[in-house]
Amino acid sequence: MDSEEKLLQFAPFSSCLDPGFWYQLTQRKVNIYKLDDSPVSISGFYSNGEAPGLPVLANIDYTAFDGNRKAPAHQFTLMGTLYNTNILDEFKQKDKQKLILDFGKQIWSDIKSGKALKKPSSTLSLFLAVTFADLKRYVFYYWFAYPALIHPEKVVLLSPPLSLQNCFTADQIIQLQCTYDLLEDPEDRSYFLVHINEAQSITVRPLREYLDLKNEPGKLIVGFADPCTLKENPGWPLRNLLALVSYHWGKDRSEWEVLCFRDRVKDGKRSSSHSLLLQVKLCGTMIPNDAPLCVGWEKNEKQKLGPRHVDLSSSMNPKRLAESAVELNLRLMRWRLVPSLDLEKITSTKCLLLGAGTLGCNVGRCLLSWGVKHITFVDNARVSFSNPVRQSLFTFESCLDGGELKAEAAANGLRRIFPGIVTQGINLSIPMPGHPVNGKLIEQIKQDVEQLEDLVETHDVVFLLMDTRESRWLPTVLGALKQKIVFSVALGFDTFLVLRHGMKSKDSNSGVKPMSLDGAVPGDQLGCYFCNDVVAPGNSTRDRTLDQQCTVTRPGVSMVASALAVELLVSLLQHPRGPLAEAETSSWDQNLTVESESPLGIIPHQIRGFLSRFHHILPASIAFNQCTACSHSVLDMYKREGYDFLLKVFNEPNYLEDLTGLKKLHEETNSAEVWVLSDNESM
Amino acid sequence: MDSEEKLLQFAPFSSCLDPGFWYQLTQRKVNIYKLDDSPVSISGFYSNGEAPGLPVLANIDYTAFDGNRKAPAHQFTLMGTLYNTNILDEFKQKDKQKLILDFGKQIWSDIKSGKALKKPSSTLSLFLAVTFADLKRYVFYYWFAYPALIHPEKVVLLSPPLSLQNCFTADQIIQLQCTYDLLEDPEDRSYFLVHINEAQSITVRPLREYLDLKNEPGKLIVGFADPCTLKENPGWPLRNLLALVSYHWGKDRSEWEVLCFRDRVKDGKRSSSHSLLLQVKLCGTMIPNDAPLCVGWEKNEKQKLGPRHVDLSSSMNPKRLAESAVELNLRLMRWRLVPSLDLEKITSTKCLLLGAGTLGCNVGRCLLSWGVKHITFVDNARVSFSNPVRQSLFTFESCLDGGELKAEAAANGLRRIFPGIVTQGINLSIPMPGHPVNGKLIEQIKQDVEQLEDLVETHDVVFLLMDTRESRWLPTVLGALKQKIVFSVALGFDTFLVLRHGMKSKDSNSGVKPMSLDGAVPGDQLGCYFCNDVVAPGNSTRDRTLDQQCTVTRPGVSMVASALAVELLVSLLQHPRGPLAEAETSSWDQNLTVESESPLGIIPHQIRGFLSRFHHILPASIAFNQCTACSHSVLDMYKREGYDFLLKVFNEPNYLEDLTGLKKLHEETNSAEVWVLSDNESM
Repeated sequence: MDSEEKLLQFAPFSSCLDPGFWYQLTQRKVNIYKLDDSPVSISGFYSNGEAPGLPVLANIDYTAFDGNRKAPAHQFTLMGTLYNTNILDEFKQKDKQKLILDFGKQIWSDIKSGKALKKPSSTLSLFLAVTFADLKRYVFYYWFAYPALIHPEKVVLLSPPLSLQNCFTADQIIQLQCTYDLLEDPEDRSYFLVHINEAQSITVRPLREYLDLKNEPGKLIVGFADPCTLKENPGWPLRNLLALVSYHWGKDRSEWEVLCFRDRVKDGKRSSSHSLLLQVKLCGTMIPNDAPLCVGWEKNEKQKLGPRHVDLSSSMNPKRLAESAVELNLRLMRWRLVPSLDLEKITSTKCLLLGAGTLGCNVGRCLLSWGVKHITFVDNARVSFSNPVRQSLFTFESCLDGGELKAEAAANGLRRIFPGIVTQGINLSIPMPGHPVNGKLIEQIKQDVEQLEDLVETHDVVFLLMDTRESRWLPTVLGALKQKIVFSVALGFDTFLVLRHGMKSKDSNSGVKPMSLDGAVPGDQLGCYFCNDVVAPGNSTRDRTLDQQCTVTRPGVSMVASALAVELLVSLLQHPRGPLAEAETSSWDQNLTVESESPLGIIPHQIRGFLSRFHHILPASIAFNQCTACSHSVLDMYKREGYDFLLKVFNEPNYLEDLTGLKKLHEETNSAEVWVLSDNESM
Repeated sequence: MDSEEKLLQFAPFSSCLDPGFWYQLTQRKVNIYKLDDSPVSISGFYSNGEAPGLPVLANIDYTAFDGNRKAPAHQFTLMGTLYNTNILDEFKQKDKQKLILDFGKQIWSDIKSGKALKKPSSTLSLFLAVTFADLKRYVFYYWFAYPALIHPEKVVLLSPPLSLQNCFTADQIIQLQCTYDLLEDPEDRSYFLVHINEAQSITVRPLREYLDLKNEPGKLIVGFADPCTLKENPGWPLRNLLALVSYHWGKDRSEWEVLCFRDRVKDGKRSSSHSLLLQVKLCGTMIPNDAPLCVGWEKNEKQKLGPRHVDLSSSMNPKRLAESAVELNLRLMRWRLVPSLDLEKITSTKCLLLGAGTLGCNVGRCLLSWGVKHITFVDNARVSFSNPVRQSLFTFESCLDGGELKAEAAANGLRRIFPGIVTQGINLSIPMPGHPVNGKLIEQIKQDVEQLEDLVETHDVVFLLMDTRESRWLPTVLGALKQKIVFSVALGFDTFLVLRHGMKSKDSNSGVKPMSLDGAVPGDQLGCYFCNDVVAPGNSTRDRTLDQQCTVTRPGVSMVASALAVELLVSLLQHPRGPLAEAETSSWDQNLTVESESPLGIIPHQIRGFLSRFHHILPASIAFNQCTACSHSVLDMYKREGYDFLLKVFNEPNYLEDLTGLKKLHEETNSAEVWVLSDNESM
């Protein structure tokens, strides 16, 4: 008989990994686990209703990380443990033999303790996964195991497997289905007992009722939900069930009938008649001292024991891929370097860029690099041939046929880089003091003013990136009125100024305190771009020679100034007091006057850079109470008179100086030397 | 008779301006005149052989500025004076009336002095032009005048003009042509005398022979080369000729015959028979005390006295336009700001960029902005989805289908911006110490090494912009061997290093002097990227977690570092000693140790930047005589053994440390604390 003895063979699980699983893993690795490579609980599932011909699938999908996931009908949970390594070498070097043996010990222990009788699914249906996610390339390395105890030593098939329809009546099969459905605990639906009483009537019962049932008249069969579709073989889950049977009930008898319960709905009709009934003998059921050996590492596509990998870079939606890749790069900062970084504060900030020239393009690019999702450009010029080499969102194509509108071309440039950006280019001339408005223009400029007001209102940050002083006036006033964060950037030939405007307090009556001598100025008392000036802005574009019309600068100046402006904004956004943060005036430790509270460093009021010396200074200046842009007399008049006030500013050269009292100041200091900050002078 | 008196009317010049003229003006304005708006001598020409129906054309083309230009046959020079203003308002406000009256005075003075008799063309055929060239937009504003004296007060046409063929015989016309051709001085061909002797024989003579001829028997006629094609009217040049006739010979008689000499070649046959013969009476020939009034401002397209403008931005070749626009922007720097700037030194520098990532793209862009014409990228990676938002030469498109090769994509990016660039992307892995080379690899890596050697050889500057330390080794060695300018740029999270490698002296035996204590280090004694290291480079890519693999940096860091690296190079190129310039270690005046000799500022050895403090330091360090990259023991061994030496470096971990004596140093300082500079540590 030994020579003809036929051993039962089990069809192993094949991992069926949905890309959603890898997407979830990526998200969690980046956002939650970071460098933590502790094992993580996940889950998969299998079905006993698969169509004929399919392998024994272990499905792992986007729900794998959902701890509360319930297996749907006809699906059975596999409890998994994920070992995601930080580096590929760790993945390779992980001791897989030891790992699966440890799982074997756990299963054996649960069998011995009786826990497996009460919770058979979560103790017997297990898997483990070792993975390495190359998140830069979207390549995932993985090796899955479905631990199965080698116990009993061998399982002999006493007769050829029978299809259920050949040994059960149709009534019996219906009884089987109905009483199976009555099992309340999903744990019991994976592994169960089938009792056939003397009247040949069928009942399905939980494993834990064995002791009650074994003494009842009739026949007792062990059953399990079988994911296999082969006619001769049961699926993998039977292995641990037989270990349990052998351990607990092997002393009662060694020959068992096993129901491989297959339960399919086909053409709207439930069928279980293709289930198998096996006659097996459990041999060598001597109970070992140690846990039995455990096997189950999956073979790879070459049918060898080894890992697999999947390259998802091409199959994922490229726009989605780009978005998650960009997000990844940013989130990486939090892993080691700045754990307290609040990226959401940065990426959700809506930025309005006034000017889409060399500064506008570079600021836009740097904001995009920081993940800012909402960027609006305003400009009124067209792209000319000299622009693209310095204005980094334009190409040669943008100059043809008279040139694209700069604002639109800049927005299109951002979209070409990152389709997920929300961006818009608005062709608008910013009304300016000293540029008279009359006749037909009155109505048109009114609309321009209203559009600009709306734009400032609907954004969080306004960047003033224009090349004339007077075009900065109206946005400075609007930013102050609406309490927006306002940044000015201005370039000289080899110098630059980056300045955050002071945030006006809501209470227009709050007086401005004199600047403290230790140099630290609170954010709501800082000056604006015009606070250092003692003349009102006027028409500066008249009488400029070509080298004054073009902003003639060393090309690096704009790159440096734009980058520093964005970095200063980002540091500001991370500061607990945001724009109210005090201004730091010294760049180095020994003189640090303000406690640096932003996780990214200090937040000065101004950065003045000198490229010829590779040097920065960080002055802070207090708001000037006769400022022609941000003083309360200006803001109050605007609130009171609106556009009528603006018309006076545009049309009457001395109006602002009269209003703010600057004229009086001039008379008083007539012969005194005053320092005038001008866009055209080196700063 | 007075009521029927018919006054002679003259057909005025129409300016025919070739775009070549505007191109030449642009070139001269930018390169030569700059802000100098003094009047400039130019010239134009007219022809007396135009086809019927054409207006009286004054041609001004690309030869206008050529002082030695000779008028070709049948063309006559107009001597011009160009007033090109610096700003549009000057153009508008120029006193045109005064200007033309001044010209009238000059002409009158030349007539009175007799100069006009000797040099009639260059004294009577004049024009002036007031222009403003908007070189940013390629729009040119202009107003031309062809000064003509109002003298005599009126010219009465005594009989209808006759065609020459109706009053001269064919023989006479041939005599006219032949003797006209005998005039030697081109001056005399514009204005001349025609003598008809008693035998009706015709001779053409210069004006200055009037006194001889007037006493000879026969008839004396005044003639001029007539650009007009009308049958009833002479062209504009006759006006100043009649002023001359009236002044010098008016006392002899008031009635004159005038030959409007028209001299055309049609179908290969010369014809002058369509010339006109006029009978005129010069009236009111009283000689004024002052110069007579002068007219001649050209009417515009609306037939009003006023300026015209032409927009050439669309008609010029766009690539050429882009090139000249970019050049203009650079040359503007020289106008006021840095007159000594040698742009040629910058634009002709051939730059090799090793690494086409965030640094490579930004450095490439900044070089392009400076007008550098030759940029080569080397990289071995493909563009991935996270790249474009930080790597400024790539777009979303570059990532699709597995990603373009970075080096090629970067070169294409530059071309898209500026088609005039000479650029190339080379897909090449740079061989590295610690990455063993054996078997089949030996031959392949040898080719890679040779390609890299060629690349370093054929470029002037090598930028090391990679993200691993060991990949910088071979290029550092090659740059030192071949005496190239080498720049290293490396990034930390919010820090960066920009370093110019010391220029090795040709004499390998020259010892390195100890660093002087005052901090100034000559360019040939400065250290390289590896000089601060006391370990040889090895494989640093193994065992790096994701945040170490991606260069995780604040996005602004790369923009700042790249811009400063290029600006440092540009300053270096402008220094009279170039790469041998001493390194400045202090950024501000009070501590300046080295006389700043570059017109663009100081030239430190290193710029180390700290974004969290918006601060730079400028250390200088001396070459380390046991350096694993630039020490003479390494360079000499490479020269001697070539690739065999490299194989030892690649394959034997301790070889470099043995060779340089670093191993010994390690043993000596075994327990001492040493500072190791690493790419992965914050710098």
